[in-house]
Amino acid sequence: MKIAVDAMGGDHAPGEIVRGAVEAAREYRQEIILVGDREKILAELGQSPPAPIEVFHAPEIIAMGEHPAVAVRRKKQSSIVQAVRLVKEGEAAALVSAGSTGAAMAASLLGLGRIQGIDRPAIASVLPRRGGTTVLLDAGANVDCKPHHLLQFAIMGSLYAEKILGVPRPRVGLLNVGEEETKGNELTLATFPLLRQAKINFIGNVEGRDIFAGTVDVVVCDGFVGNIVLKAGEGLATALLGMIKEEVTRSWLAKMGTAMAISALKCFERRIDYAEYGGAPLLGVNGVSIICHGSSTARAIKNAIKRAREAVETGLVSAIRSSIEDMAEHQKVGIN
Amino acid sequence: MKIAVDAMGGDHAPGEIVRGAVEAAREYRQEIILVGDREKILAELGQSPPAPIEVFHAPEIIAMGEHPAVAVRRKKQSSIVQAVRLVKEGEAAALVSAGSTGAAMAASLLGLGRIQGIDRPAIASVLPRRGGTTVLLDAGANVDCKPHHLLQFAIMGSLYAEKILGVPRPRVGLLNVGEEETKGNELTLATFPLLRQAKINFIGNVEGRDIFAGTVDVVVCDGFVGNIVLKAGEGLATALLGMIKEEVTRSWLAKMGTAMAISALKCFERRIDYAEYGGAPLLGVNGVSIICHGSSTARAIKNAIKRAREAVETGLVSAIRSSIEDMAEHQKVGIN
Repeated sequence: MKIAVDAMGGDHAPGEIVRGAVEAAREYRQEIILVGDREKILAELGQSPPAPIEVFHAPEIIAMGEHPAVAVRRKKQSSIVQAVRLVKEGEAAALVSAGSTGAAMAASLLGLGRIQGIDRPAIASVLPRRGGTTVLLDAGANVDCKPHHLLQFAIMGSLYAEKILGVPRPRVGLLNVGEEETKGNELTLATFPLLRQAKINFIGNVEGRDIFAGTVDVVVCDGFVGNIVLKAGEGLATALLGMIKEEVTRSWLAKMGTAMAISALKCFERRIDYAEYGGAPLLGVNGVSIICHGSSTARAIKNAIKRAREAVETGLVSAIRSSIEDMAEHQKVGIN
Repeated sequence: MKIAVDAMGGDHAPGEIVRGAVEAAREYRQEIILVGDREKILAELGQSPPAPIEVFHAPEIIAMGEHPAVAVRRKKQSSIVQAVRLVKEGEAAALVSAGSTGAAMAASLLGLGRIQGIDRPAIASVLPRRGGTTVLLDAGANVDCKPHHLLQFAIMGSLYAEKILGVPRPRVGLLNVGEEETKGNELTLATFPLLRQAKINFIGNVEGRDIFAGTVDVVVCDGFVGNIVLKAGEGLATALLGMIKEEVTRSWLAKMGTAMAISALKCFERRIDYAEYGGAPLLGVNGVSIICHGSSTARAIKNAIKRAREAVETGLVSAIRSSIEDMAEHQKVGIN
């Protein structure tokens, strides 16, 4: 099984991307196709690629500022479009990209198509918390959603937590401003009854503080809220670490030497580092497409490749397909 | 100038509320009316109240679970309804409550009324960041908003940052999923042009990470998003502190004694403690109404009382009134 990696996407491409791929190839013996400018990739690899890595030449690049759908249609020879094509044509089993999220989404959607019954694919982010992780979706693919979209997100997120993160009977919660069923905006009020009837372990409404509390495994929201919560969390964690470093420096370092303090903080930073958790899958397309943070390091890419492999091995896409078919069947019976 | 304090509202009422009021009375020589069950308040105060504190007897309490609008209409003798009445009738210049947010909002809205031209009052939360604070509104009063509501929030938030927090020409940003004008959901796309035309220092769209970055002073969003971002931030900060404590304990404490580590963490916790920043004003009502966190401690109440006094002294309500009149006048001229 090969995994296509968009070597040209991301703030640190192609250097960190290529390094991450090499590490994954070594550590997991994973076969990888690096997609992008052959010259540049080979320059990063040094001489010829190591054993389980091939290079697929794609001369064009879609930059961060470009309109995703337009760029994807025009730049057929771009690294992201070609990586998707490799998956579509069965050359690769999955793809990983740290390029423009919009372009990766548009290319995946156009190239792979939607799973029947899914109206809107969603990005599922995995967030660290004490003693585990929480899946949040949609993390930004769809800014305006209808209740049945959130229902589909809930089903896909539950399968992802179960299959990939190994959570038995994942607790699924609807992100809201209060726990009571009567709380919420128009969207969540209309979504609540749909989730209650779905074949998932729906635990009801959850609040913002639950995301990091370990009280819920899958948090469902529209992509506007999801994107803002994620970025606010990143911003807050960065600000807090800055404040902690100031505090530590002020009160301890002068007295006690810097080595120990820095080692403890690094250890802590690693625990909350998003790179540890790999990329976020675009759930609902006909194939495995993992979207990474634009600032991904080699470690983030390596972990995303691992994530992609797990998604293929556990049959995530076909599990989503049959759950959605099952739901549709169930609804049909209900109508008759 | 007297400030009415709802002595019965909050998880730690009346004990912490009364203590906070006594501290404010001493520290700022602030005249205070404690509103609630006279017996219980006097028991906390010990014998007769200290000099600038009076007790106003209100026998009823609105509990957290009660439907706010219904409870406010039925329980005329409740502490929150009576505190609002004291403001309305000019006995007090402002009120502070840590009780049910919904009840405090409903009582303020019914009792004080809206400022003409304001359709929906909003809760303005002040968030700590390195080197300052950020105002976020609406923090939860209105879960479904229209563009002109967000415009009103922006004007009120800007005045609050200027008058109360002393920020000259506050930078106002629209919370969104990207910085470009073309990014956003239906609500933010329609709001952007309104904010650009308003008489505020509108800097455009801001993202979740900007809230804690110091790049913006006033962040505007609907109350659904605002409430979730705030609670997620609280939850994340708590989780991070827990993780840090674990990390510190694991690597340092055993070796170096606990005293220093705990003192540095306490110092840090104090910097991010929401109690430091007092309560959140309900902007847009005809009077100063400060809503506090349900878990408010004496320090939070003391700081909220200080906030309330500043709002009265700087003429926040009349400033909002004239800005909104000015805007309406401007629009009228524009139409003619």
